[in-house]
Amino acid sequence: MSIVVYLPSPKTSAKWVARLQTVLPEAEVVSGHEPFDAAQVEYAAVWQPAHGFLAGLPNLKAIVSLAAGVDHLAADPELPRQIPVIRTIGSDLTQRMREYVAMQVLNLHRGMPEMLASAQQAKWAPIVAPVAGQRKVGILGLGNLGAAAAALLAQIGFETRGWARSPKDIAQVTCHHGPEGLKRFLQDCEIVVNLLPLTPETRHILDASLFQALPKGACLVNCGRGDHLHEADLLAALDNGQIAHAILDAFPIEPLPEEHPFWTHPNVTVTPHIASQVDPDTGSRIIAENIRQFAKDGRCGDMADMQRGY
Amino acid sequence: MSIVVYLPSPKTSAKWVARLQTVLPEAEVVSGHEPFDAAQVEYAAVWQPAHGFLAGLPNLKAIVSLAAGVDHLAADPELPRQIPVIRTIGSDLTQRMREYVAMQVLNLHRGMPEMLASAQQAKWAPIVAPVAGQRKVGILGLGNLGAAAAALLAQIGFETRGWARSPKDIAQVTCHHGPEGLKRFLQDCEIVVNLLPLTPETRHILDASLFQALPKGACLVNCGRGDHLHEADLLAALDNGQIAHAILDAFPIEPLPEEHPFWTHPNVTVTPHIASQVDPDTGSRIIAENIRQFAKDGRCGDMADMQRGY
Ligand SMILES: NC(=O)c1ccc[n+]([C@@H]2O[C@H](COP(=O)([O-])OP(=O)(O)OC[C@H]3O[C@@H](n4cnc5c(N)ncnc54)[C@H](OP(=O)(O)O)[C@@H]3O)[C@@H](O)[C@H]2O)c1
Ligand SMILES: NC(=O)c1ccc[n+]([C@@H]2O[C@H](COP(=O)([O-])OP(=O)(O)OC[C@H]3O[C@@H](n4cnc5c(N)ncnc54)[C@H](OP(=O)(O)O)[C@@H]3O)[C@@H](O)[C@H]2O)c1
Repeated sequence: MSIVVYLPSPKTSAKWVARLQTVLPEAEVVSGHEPFDAAQVEYAAVWQPAHGFLAGLPNLKAIVSLAAGVDHLAADPELPRQIPVIRTIGSDLTQRMREYVAMQVLNLHRGMPEMLASAQQAKWAPIVAPVAGQRKVGILGLGNLGAAAAALLAQIGFETRGWARSPKDIAQVTCHHGPEGLKRFLQDCEIVVNLLPLTPETRHILDASLFQALPKGACLVNCGRGDHLHEADLLAALDNGQIAHAILDAFPIEPLPEEHPFWTHPNVTVTPHIASQVDPDTGSRIIAENIRQFAKDGRCGDMADMQRGY
Repeated sequence: MSIVVYLPSPKTSAKWVARLQTVLPEAEVVSGHEPFDAAQVEYAAVWQPAHGFLAGLPNLKAIVSLAAGVDHLAADPELPRQIPVIRTIGSDLTQRMREYVAMQVLNLHRGMPEMLASAQQAKWAPIVAPVAGQRKVGILGLGNLGAAAAALLAQIGFETRGWARSPKDIAQVTCHHGPEGLKRFLQDCEIVVNLLPLTPETRHILDASLFQALPKGACLVNCGRGDHLHEADLLAALDNGQIAHAILDAFPIEPLPEEHPFWTHPNVTVTPHIASQVDPDTGSRIIAENIRQFAKDGRCGDMADMQRGY
């Protein structure tokens, strides 16, 4: 079995090659940045592959996304659409996202950004927040990550709601679904967290009309993708107070360019795409299991549905 | 029944008078800042009473602390020590503290202070933290607040430990106790949260010797009292890297004076004593119940032990 690894950085690719080789001693693992025999390759483990790279692998059996999202594959106009795609998820990815969402929702709930700004001027300016049980928070997307994050918010005590494509049943979480459920979900959401996958339907879903459907002064956490957010609409909503504060972890261009207005906006907090990631060690073990199972059964538990887009 | 209310601010005192009068219509509630008949007073509901104020009430049956802590009473050299003291606690106080502790431990765990500092310079500098299960956090004090906070940290996934005077049994929390248990508690604690009451034994407990017993680069959250912390020792420990970051919510003088070095120290985050407080509405109902029960039985569930100091 031959596996090619491709991430934009040759150095990071080489690291993944070494890791996968260790956990898949039966396979030959090569880097897409070095010469290799394309005809031999059965599996490609990739993150943001160069457009056309996958189309150049004639005997590919499956594509492994080195991430939970698969939008970086769908972005390739030459993506061989008939090839099955395996996502990489795992308990550490879910755990890190639960932590990040809990942390940022608590920060917004308790007014930390504002208090930190006061502190920078040596100003003692207490903010007394209601208890979490009186704070309505919501999560867009109730998949692997969204459902786990929603459950933790409910355990912390927040009045929690969620939104997905299909009906869901999560203890202590009010679940809405479908386009008709979105307005009801948004109407009293004081803090909204985006954990949708990026698809044609969800691109720019965080736009003026969504902001307008929230109560005035709501806060936003985007830990989906940069392209979920209509940036100009957010800046306008921050200006007119419809959105009080936004915490953003993902951007269309990363690193976020130095001159981008988000860096200096007083009501925007930028985090450098650290909400969650699969640990390379755990991740390589998960990938090894997925590839072995796929080789045996022609599928595994973490298949993406590329028709649906996630 | 006559109740006198005293807080340093006459305005805040008047607000509490109105609230307590509403929930205790059978009583006569007066402000200590206005003329009143001291001989009539059976209960005093106070926060930082002027020294000697309580000693001037000859027929006092109980003192109600308008807080969970009673150190503000013990600070009065003329405190009539034989008079029973009722603490004011409640589910909203506990809930707010759970939220605050979870928020600040998550912020330290995920490196938020450092990432916010990078962001202020438009610097994209990701910090990848281990998952919470590989992070050792500990709480000093496992009373009403500490036990609830520890339980939530464990639910979030942290490897959680705690320390109290007496042995404790809390699910998923390793509990240490007594002076001999302290070293063991501290030795691998990467983030330590103080939720002790301020007593002669715990004053300046957060000092050089405690910092030295922590692993190098540990972080501190103080949501007890300002006098738990030896400030000069903390500044030295921050300078030599023994402590990486401190989040402080309580100070010996509040508001924290504008010229205090904590405001500008890059590795100190100041919050303006907002970790938790009893909501005045809920609080006044709790106080009313406690006073009624005390009047009937000579005690209630929230008695402090002034011998012990908390
Ligand atoms: N910032 C970061 O560090 C980071 C890290 C990892 C992942 N992510 C992002 O998080 C996303 C979610 O990951 P996941 O593993 O939780 O995905 P997932 O398991 O595929 O779940 C996606 C969820 O979104 C819902 N959804 C999809 N399209 C929808 C639509 N048009 N309308 C309503 N609901 C829709 C799905 O509904 P159904 O359940 O009904 O299908 C599902 O609940 C990833 O795609 C990635 O973009 C970000
Ligand atoms: N910053 C804020 O906003 C804020 C708000 C509310 C309260 N507080 C502070 O939080 C403190 C704790 O409140 P609480 O209601 O949880 O108090 P509590 O119920 O009285 O609990 C105190 C805990 O500390 C332990 N303890 C006391 N002295 C000790 C010693 N010498 N050595 C070891 N352990 C000791 C006790 O051990 P045992 O259980 O064995 O007795 C108990 O577990 C308050 O006193 C107050 O100072 C701060």
